[in-house]
Amino acid sequence: MEIRTILVEPKLEENIGAVARVIKNFGCSELYLVKPANIGEKAKAVASHAYDVLSGCEIVDSVEEAIKNSVIVAGTTSRHGISANKHLRMPFFSPRQLKEKVKGLGKSEILSVLFGSEDTGLKREELMLCDIVVCIPTSSEYPVMNLSHAVAVVLYELSEVEGAAASGTEKLASVEAKERLFMHVKTFLDEIGYKEHKKEKTMLMLQRILGRAELTGREVQTLRGILRKAEWKIGDVRTRNWLKEQG
Amino acid sequence: MEIRTILVEPKLEENIGAVARVIKNFGCSELYLVKPANIGEKAKAVASHAYDVLSGCEIVDSVEEAIKNSVIVAGTTSRHGISANKHLRMPFFSPRQLKEKVKGLGKSEILSVLFGSEDTGLKREELMLCDIVVCIPTSSEYPVMNLSHAVAVVLYELSEVEGAAASGTEKLASVEAKERLFMHVKTFLDEIGYKEHKKEKTMLMLQRILGRAELTGREVQTLRGILRKAEWKIGDVRTRNWLKEQG
Repeated sequence: MEIRTILVEPKLEENIGAVARVIKNFGCSELYLVKPANIGEKAKAVASHAYDVLSGCEIVDSVEEAIKNSVIVAGTTSRHGISANKHLRMPFFSPRQLKEKVKGLGKSEILSVLFGSEDTGLKREELMLCDIVVCIPTSSEYPVMNLSHAVAVVLYELSEVEGAAASGTEKLASVEAKERLFMHVKTFLDEIGYKEHKKEKTMLMLQRILGRAELTGREVQTLRGILRKAEWKIGDVRTRNWLKEQG
Repeated sequence: MEIRTILVEPKLEENIGAVARVIKNFGCSELYLVKPANIGEKAKAVASHAYDVLSGCEIVDSVEEAIKNSVIVAGTTSRHGISANKHLRMPFFSPRQLKEKVKGLGKSEILSVLFGSEDTGLKREELMLCDIVVCIPTSSEYPVMNLSHAVAVVLYELSEVEGAAASGTEKLASVEAKERLFMHVKTFLDEIGYKEHKKEKTMLMLQRILGRAELTGREVQTLRGILRKAEWKIGDVRTRNWLKEQG
């Protein structure tokens, strides 16, 4: 799926620059601007290393032009916008629900996401061009987000669709590695003469603690290294004792 | 759970103001600043209606002071930061995984989330004070997010824990209402003399279409209203034909 970010009449060039940066942060590239403010030095400074996205943006005169060739058009609105446009009678989705909705889209199919002007948001006639209305769950005390922040949240949510998900999990230990660690601990408890009637409970407790800790493969290796080191030490002491006994 | 947002040595006052706004957008309030830049008019302008969060922030001299009384300390880092600090050997979590981790926290328990300086991110010794390392999944081409955008994504993810989730789903039609609609459609097909051998397939197709559309209660009512109107029309025509036949 291609994600096309469309800003409708953005008033502040800083916001346009910030959105360009967010687009690149989340591995997207398409930026369409409908009747934007002038893009000058401020926008470039805020875009930072996403100048390519900024300079490659499409500037168009209407929302109809901007959404051309897209398969699904999603319009974002604040809670405030929802209550003002209740008569549009659309159920609104959270960004997560939008992700669920679009996860069947093909690789070259375009999802357009519309963001309204800073002061007015998307207007009634713009919302009517949308297939889906998306609303970021915010506090009723201050529901209106900054434009580029809203884009950040929506792209964060959608980009996971494209496999940009955390790679933190990749490093977690395999079930087998953890099993080997537990067996090692069990043997170790035997070796140190841990009381038999306490062993089961202790093993269970250790299992829970280590489970909660979500060990990485490397951490499992380190823990087993400690056990091995302790085993050698015990073996070493035993040998020395034996030698001493022998005189 | 209380979420305490901690900015460590933030350099740009605009970012501090933007973070204050995000904090209020997501229904949080605690903002701690460790040795921040001077907070002036720019910060106030960007904070907009979140001036209360900005003026109520705590300014402290060290991370140790900032994390006081918190139950869990999470440190954020970009992918870039992860590779630079591999030797810290921490598995890192996505914001979503962090949410999973902390969902058992009690109402008054504090989760501190640390965000590093714009230029350096969290330093090694700051990361060492953290229980959990969080990394927003970003593109390897441009992994470093603007400070306030990173806060927006993390608070968006965490605030759902506190029930700020979209209320869009609330308005969806009940299973019973949808069942009544389908029965109504079935009767209607009979009434209009729809071909018996086509009926089953057509009903299945309609079920799928309406299922995908995730109808609201109101929409179900509207659709049934259309059916009723059509039924009346058919009845009306029938009556008139009958009257005509009677001469």
